[in-house]
Amino acid sequence: MPHITLPEGFPGIRSLAAYRPDTGAALYALAEALLRGDSSFTQADAELIATFTSSLNECVFCTSSHAAAARYLFNTNKDVVDAVIADYQTAPISEKMKALLTIAKCVQQDARTVSEEIVANARLAGATDREIHDTVLIAATFCMFNRYVDGLATITPTDPAVYEPMGERMGTLGYVPPKPTV
Amino acid sequence: MPHITLPEGFPGIRSLAAYRPDTGAALYALAEALLRGDSSFTQADAELIATFTSSLNECVFCTSSHAAAARYLFNTNKDVVDAVIADYQTAPISEKMKALLTIAKCVQQDARTVSEEIVANARLAGATDREIHDTVLIAATFCMFNRYVDGLATITPTDPAVYEPMGERMGTLGYVPPKPTV
Repeated sequence: MPHITLPEGFPGIRSLAAYRPDTGAALYALAEALLRGDSSFTQADAELIATFTSSLNECVFCTSSHAAAARYLFNTNKDVVDAVIADYQTAPISEKMKALLTIAKCVQQDARTVSEEIVANARLAGATDREIHDTVLIAATFCMFNRYVDGLATITPTDPAVYEPMGERMGTLGYVPPKPTV
Repeated sequence: MPHITLPEGFPGIRSLAAYRPDTGAALYALAEALLRGDSSFTQADAELIATFTSSLNECVFCTSSHAAAARYLFNTNKDVVDAVIADYQTAPISEKMKALLTIAKCVQQDARTVSEEIVANARLAGATDREIHDTVLIAATFCMFNRYVDGLATITPTDPAVYEPMGERMGTLGYVPPKPTV
C-alpha cells in the first residue's frame, strides 16, 4: 500500500505524476527526451540501460516496465534484455554496450567511481562523448525514478502480463503523463 | 577534469545543461517546480532537504551550491544549514523537519527502507502527505543530480566564495537553464 493517498487506477510512477502534475510533467519530459529524443542510442538501447540500472536498484516496477518496453523494441532479439538483467558481462551485446553498462553500474553505486580508466575503456570500444554522457544521465535518472517509486511504496503489479501492453505503449506512444485527476 | 568535452565557462550542472539543452530544460523545469513551485515547503526548506541529500552523497558541487541558496534564504537563521550538514538530529530545526530528513536519508540509501513506521513518525510530528511526497521526490531528484554531476566529473569550484552569488541567484531568479552554446 502506498505511504500516502494517491489517485487510484494508476500504478508506479503514473500515480505520482497524477498526484503532482507539475513535477510529473517535467519528469515525463525528461524521460521522453532522454529515452526517445535526439541521441545516437536507439530507444531500445536507452531502455536497456534504464532497465539495467533499475534492476541494480531492485525496483520491480521500473525494471518490469522498462524491460517490457525494451523487449518490445528489440523485437526478435528480445532475449537480450533478460540476458543483461541476469549478467551483462556474458550477455550477447556489443563490447561498447558492456563498457557503457559498466559506467551505468558505477553511477548507480557511487558516481565518483566513474574513473578515467572506465571511461577510456568505453571510448576504446567505440563509445562517443555523447553516448558516455547519455549513459550517465540515464543511470542517474533511473536512480531517481527507482527511489521515487519505491520510497512512496507505489502500486507494483505482480502479474508480468500487465507490463506487456505498458511496454508496447512506452515503445510506440512514449512518455505521455497521465491526465491530472480533479 | 570532466570525462567528456563540455562547454567552457560553466561549472557543475550548468555545463551539462549547456551540453545537452533538451534534457537540461527538463531538469531545470523539475528543479524550479520542486524547489520553488507550489508547495507547503518554503524554498528554504526545500533547499535544506536538497543540501542534506547532496551532503549524504558527498557531492561537493551540489552541496556547496544548494547550501549557499539555503543560507541566503534562511538569512539571519543561516547557521541552521551547516548544523544540518554536521548532524541533523541535533540541529535547531523542528521535529517535523527532523522526521522528514530521516525519510530523505532512507531514500538516499535505499528507498525501500522508507518504512510505515518512519512515515508514521513524520505524520505524528505534523507532516502532511504532500510534505512526505515532496521530501521523497527532492531526495530522489538530488540522488540523480549528484550522480549526473559527479559521474561526468564536472568542474567543481573549490573556493567557497564562488558559491555565494550562485546561491543568491538560485534564491532569487531560480532555476534558469544556461543559453545553449552554438
